[in-house]
Amino acid sequence: MTNKKLIGVDLGGTTIKFAILTAEGEIQQKWSLRTNILDEGSHIVPDIIESINHHIDLYKMSRDQFIGIGMGTPGTVDRDNGTVIGAYNLNWKTLQPVKEQIEAGTGLKFAIDNDANCAGLGERWKGAGNDGDDVAFITLGTGVGGGLIANRQLLHGIGGAAGEVGHIIVQPNGYQCTCGNHGCLEQYASATGVVHLAQDLAEEYEGTSRLKKMIDDGDEITSKIVFDLAKERDYLANKVVDKVCYYLGLACANISNTLNPEFVVIGGGVSAAGDFLLKRVQKNFNEFAFATVRTSTQLKLAELGNDAGVIGAASLATQFA
Amino acid sequence: MTNKKLIGVDLGGTTIKFAILTAEGEIQQKWSLRTNILDEGSHIVPDIIESINHHIDLYKMSRDQFIGIGMGTPGTVDRDNGTVIGAYNLNWKTLQPVKEQIEAGTGLKFAIDNDANCAGLGERWKGAGNDGDDVAFITLGTGVGGGLIANRQLLHGIGGAAGEVGHIIVQPNGYQCTCGNHGCLEQYASATGVVHLAQDLAEEYEGTSRLKKMIDDGDEITSKIVFDLAKERDYLANKVVDKVCYYLGLACANISNTLNPEFVVIGGGVSAAGDFLLKRVQKNFNEFAFATVRTSTQLKLAELGNDAGVIGAASLATQFA
Repeated sequence: MTNKKLIGVDLGGTTIKFAILTAEGEIQQKWSLRTNILDEGSHIVPDIIESINHHIDLYKMSRDQFIGIGMGTPGTVDRDNGTVIGAYNLNWKTLQPVKEQIEAGTGLKFAIDNDANCAGLGERWKGAGNDGDDVAFITLGTGVGGGLIANRQLLHGIGGAAGEVGHIIVQPNGYQCTCGNHGCLEQYASATGVVHLAQDLAEEYEGTSRLKKMIDDGDEITSKIVFDLAKERDYLANKVVDKVCYYLGLACANISNTLNPEFVVIGGGVSAAGDFLLKRVQKNFNEFAFATVRTSTQLKLAELGNDAGVIGAASLATQFA
Repeated sequence: MTNKKLIGVDLGGTTIKFAILTAEGEIQQKWSLRTNILDEGSHIVPDIIESINHHIDLYKMSRDQFIGIGMGTPGTVDRDNGTVIGAYNLNWKTLQPVKEQIEAGTGLKFAIDNDANCAGLGERWKGAGNDGDDVAFITLGTGVGGGLIANRQLLHGIGGAAGEVGHIIVQPNGYQCTCGNHGCLEQYASATGVVHLAQDLAEEYEGTSRLKKMIDDGDEITSKIVFDLAKERDYLANKVVDKVCYYLGLACANISNTLNPEFVVIGGGVSAAGDFLLKRVQKNFNEFAFATVRTSTQLKLAELGNDAGVIGAASLATQFA
């Protein structure tokens, strides 16, 4: 047992979240900054360094009270070299030597992984994953991402693309995805996917529906509106939710037929629909999961909300303890 | 580097294969026994013990020259307790205390896992997996099984069902599987699945085809016959192979979108069709795999044939070194 602290950083396109945590993963302090993506994102790393140094001073702490810093980031991560490339929402098009700069700027050891992996680590450690050995995390946001933990370790695979569960094919020859393929889960279970399904189903539907009227009137539709209307028994909205949950249940089942995790944890904005979503996903999961998997793998909603990222990121730094 | 040896045992419903290997996985001796499943399979473990003891004496070796014994088995394995239950092709319906008996009977340490996992370990270590960190193994036999290795470790999951790739759903509402679900990969890519597809497609097909004639004449069809006729450009046989390879390519892609292994190794009887099979699976894989996965995960045919099981089983015993 150490009294030393971890620092977790969750770098996103809009905000940078920070936390100071105990070695056991309890958050003691948290703060955030707006992400300044101007000038090719060149202010981001200096801003992170300054903010960490400032807060260490603010809390009258010293460098040797910290185990290290862990960070989650969008883009393609080279974990060994601590670099990031292709994080377009940060304007990071070229290779960013993040680890080198942050270690030099803070005097602390630094580890990095992608944001969905970090959120998965966080939920596994302190959230719905209940510190289990095998946990699959799926986040339903603008896109669909994932973090897979097996034998207590994150899976990265040979090219770092393990856990790209948003690109599992759930409907061959289905909607075209930004990745170029057709029928990826992301096209059906992300916030944009839900809206896409709503628009398509509205076109075919001829009965009465508030959702259909909104779409026909040209109102802006969100995933939240679709789920809220479905809860109010709007027929078309329920058809949309049924489809979303069918594809999610199929994907969760196939991930589980492959990994048989203790928990499949569903997080991200779309998961705010809560048990209403979970129950319908479970129904489809039950239909598609292998018997042993059906009885041993449990679907759950994420529990940490926005904190999952900083907690999981901080856990990357426990390797320096 | 040790000079001590490993013993690998591959227990099947027809034969029990044995091998003595170096600690580096080179086979030095191998032999086999017919499996005697009479009397509720009660002769199996005593036969294994006697055969191992006999061969240790035959080769004038002593117990302290061995690191231990590893064994692959059908049925549900409790790895910690070294027990097996529900191996119906062995007539093992009740719990078998295999580890306890073999350790007592041979004086050697013993580890056990299921047969597909062992074959996967073997192919990863000394076969097509090229000693990679992340390897997915799929075996296409009477059924479809798998062994998944990530971060150099076998995946078992919470209920031991990780790697049940034969039960990945590739066709919702498709053929009913022995597991009770519909549309499992096993129903399309196992030897029996290939024959089932051939029979169904023959019914719809009205052109000329040797395969159709054989089926209409009531000849017994095998997976090998279907692939051989396809190689000879039989139209219907090619339609069947296309379907098999479509489902296999979809499953390989979704496993790889999840795990991004360095290699997906395809083994088992159906894989005897070789490059003819692999090329068509690859074509479908390319269509369904996420871009990073498509360029970093490689599909390969298994290389060890019948030796995969004993080699992988033996590798279980390296933990005692």
